[in-house]
Amino acid sequence: MLPELLNLSSFRSAVAQAPAPDAAARAACVDRNSQLTKPPGALGRLEYIAIWYGSWRGDDRPEVKSPQVIVFAGNHGVTARGVSAFPAEVTAQMVANFQAGGAAINQLARLAGARMDVQALDLDRPTVDFTTAPAMSEAELFDALRTGWTAVDPAADVLVVGEMGIGNTTSAAAICHALFGGEAADWTGRGTGVTDEGLSLKTQIVAEGVALHRDQSDGLEVLRCLGGREVAAMAGAIAAARVLRIPVILDGFICCAAAACLARVDERALDHAIAGHQSAEGAHASLLAKLGKSPLLSLGLRLGEGSGAALAIQVLKGAVACHSGMATFAEAGVSDG
Amino acid sequence: MLPELLNLSSFRSAVAQAPAPDAAARAACVDRNSQLTKPPGALGRLEYIAIWYGSWRGDDRPEVKSPQVIVFAGNHGVTARGVSAFPAEVTAQMVANFQAGGAAINQLARLAGARMDVQALDLDRPTVDFTTAPAMSEAELFDALRTGWTAVDPAADVLVVGEMGIGNTTSAAAICHALFGGEAADWTGRGTGVTDEGLSLKTQIVAEGVALHRDQSDGLEVLRCLGGREVAAMAGAIAAARVLRIPVILDGFICCAAAACLARVDERALDHAIAGHQSAEGAHASLLAKLGKSPLLSLGLRLGEGSGAALAIQVLKGAVACHSGMATFAEAGVSDG
Repeated sequence: MLPELLNLSSFRSAVAQAPAPDAAARAACVDRNSQLTKPPGALGRLEYIAIWYGSWRGDDRPEVKSPQVIVFAGNHGVTARGVSAFPAEVTAQMVANFQAGGAAINQLARLAGARMDVQALDLDRPTVDFTTAPAMSEAELFDALRTGWTAVDPAADVLVVGEMGIGNTTSAAAICHALFGGEAADWTGRGTGVTDEGLSLKTQIVAEGVALHRDQSDGLEVLRCLGGREVAAMAGAIAAARVLRIPVILDGFICCAAAACLARVDERALDHAIAGHQSAEGAHASLLAKLGKSPLLSLGLRLGEGSGAALAIQVLKGAVACHSGMATFAEAGVSDG
Repeated sequence: MLPELLNLSSFRSAVAQAPAPDAAARAACVDRNSQLTKPPGALGRLEYIAIWYGSWRGDDRPEVKSPQVIVFAGNHGVTARGVSAFPAEVTAQMVANFQAGGAAINQLARLAGARMDVQALDLDRPTVDFTTAPAMSEAELFDALRTGWTAVDPAADVLVVGEMGIGNTTSAAAICHALFGGEAADWTGRGTGVTDEGLSLKTQIVAEGVALHRDQSDGLEVLRCLGGREVAAMAGAIAAARVLRIPVILDGFICCAAAACLARVDERALDHAIAGHQSAEGAHASLLAKLGKSPLLSLGLRLGEGSGAALAIQVLKGAVACHSGMATFAEAGVSDG
C-alpha cells in the first residue's frame, strides 16, 4: 500500500497522488446520520467528525480500535543561541521518560488504547543552527521524512504524531514566518516558558533565520532550512497516513508547522487531518486559521508530545461510537418528529 | 454516609451542611503537580481539573474508575401548548431506547466505562402546565428530589446526570428567567428544533409561566413551580453527590438549570461540579456564566441525555491519568529547567 520513498521527488509525487476520501462511504454516512435517534444536528461537530472519519475509512459504520501515537524527537542547533528555558539534554532525558512510560503522552496514549512508538532521530547530531546555514542537507531532510513515513503502522485507524525537541518552538515559528509572512513576533511564543527577555531574543533569532533563507515558497525547502528532524518526520508520517487512508489528529504548534509545510506541497495534503486542540503556545490559533482547521479541544495545553491530539482521540471515539452504535428511529420505534 | 431525606426541609439542611473539599489533599495535589515531568502549567486546564478532583476525592493520586451516568426522564404538561418539535410520547420511546442501549448516551457511557442507570419518573403523569398552576405540588417535588438523591451510587467516583423530557427546554428556560431575570427571549431557545414561529410561541409561554409564578427567589420553589420531575431529580442527584464527595460533570442547559436551583439554595452547592460542555442550546452560555463555570468542551452538542458531560468524562480521565501516572523530574532523571 505504502510506496517506498526513493528521494524527495518521490515524496512529492506520493503527496500529490494520495487518494481522496470515499464518496460512496461519505454518502452512506450522511444517510445513516440522518436516521439516528436524535434531533437533526443535535450531536453538533460529532456528526461531522464521524462522517469525515467514515469517508476516509471507506466505512459507513466505522470503529476506532487501533490508534497509533508516534513521538518523534530531535535536537536543534539553534539551542546554542539560548532560545529555550530548558537545556538541550532534556530531549534525550524525555525520550527515556517516554520509553519508561512516565510522560504525559504515555498516560494519554494508554487512556486512548493507542499503540505508542518513540523515534529518536540522531539526538547526538543536532541540526545546524538555522541562523548560520540550512538546518539540514537534502539527504538529512529525506532521511527524516522517511523515518516518519515508515513509522506509520498500516493497521492503525487513527494517527497522532507528537514531538520532543528542545528549541523546536523556535524552529516552528521560523517555518510559519517563512510560509505565511507577517512579522517574526507574530509567530514566536514562549515555548516551555521563556522570560520576556528570552522571548525578545527568540523573536530576533526567528527573524534572522527567515532573513537568511528568504524566498522560500516551497514547503520542503522551508522544512529543510528551518525545521528539525522531528518536525520533518512528523510531516513524513502525516503524508504516509494520507496514502494509507488513516485519519490524523493534529497536535499543537510544532505538529501544525510540519503540517503547514505539507499543505504547501499539495493543497489537499491535510484533508485527512483534523485539529485536535488549540494550544496555548502563542501563534497556534493563527496557524490553525491558516490551515483552515477548527480545534476539537481548547484547554490551554502547550506541552507537545502529541498530548492534546491524544486526548482528542477520545472525542473522535465518542463521535464514531455514536454514529456506528446508535439505533435508527425505525430500529428503536421512536417517532421522528 | 448519605442521610435519609424526610422532607424538603431536610433536603435544604443536607445541601447547606455538605462537606467542603479536602484542603490537605488539595495541597498534596498542588505539590505533586509541580514535580511532574512537564514545563510548569503546560497541561493547562488539565492540571486544575486534576487538583480539583483530587481535593474532592481526598487523594493526591486519584483514579477515575467508576463513573456513573443517570438519565432521568419526565413528562411536561406544558407540551400541550405545542412547545416542542417532537410529540410527548417520544419521552417514553426514548426511555425504551436507553434501556435497549440504542441512544447516544449509551454509546458515550460505554466509552467512558460508566455504569448507566435510567430513571423514568411517572411518565404517564405529566407535570401540570406551568402557565396555569405550579408544575408540581410540594410532595411531588420532594418525591422527584428523593428519586435523584437515592439514585446516586455511593461507590461512583464521578457522576453525570442527564435527562429526557419532551418540553423540558421550555421548563429550563422558565427556571432561568425566574432565577436570573432579563427577558423570556434571553433564555428561550429552539430545543430539539422548533421553527421561528414555534420559538415565538415558546418564548411567550416562558414569559406567561414566569409572570404567573412571580416573586420566586427560592430555588426549590422555582423548581417546583416551573420545573419537571426529571429536572428536580437531577438537582437531587447533584446534591447527593456533594454529600458523598463525588465530583459531578454538568451537562447542558437543562442540567445546568437544575443546578442553578441548587446554587440558589446554597452558594457552595456546585463547588464539586464542573461544566462538561457548552451546548448549542440558546442560553446555555449565559447560564454557565451565571454559574461561574467554564465548559471543558464546546462542540455544538444540544442533545441532552447527559451526552456532552459523558464525553467530558474522558477529559477528566485524561487529566487524572496525567496527574497520577506521570513521573516526577526526580523519578525520571529529567532536568527541571
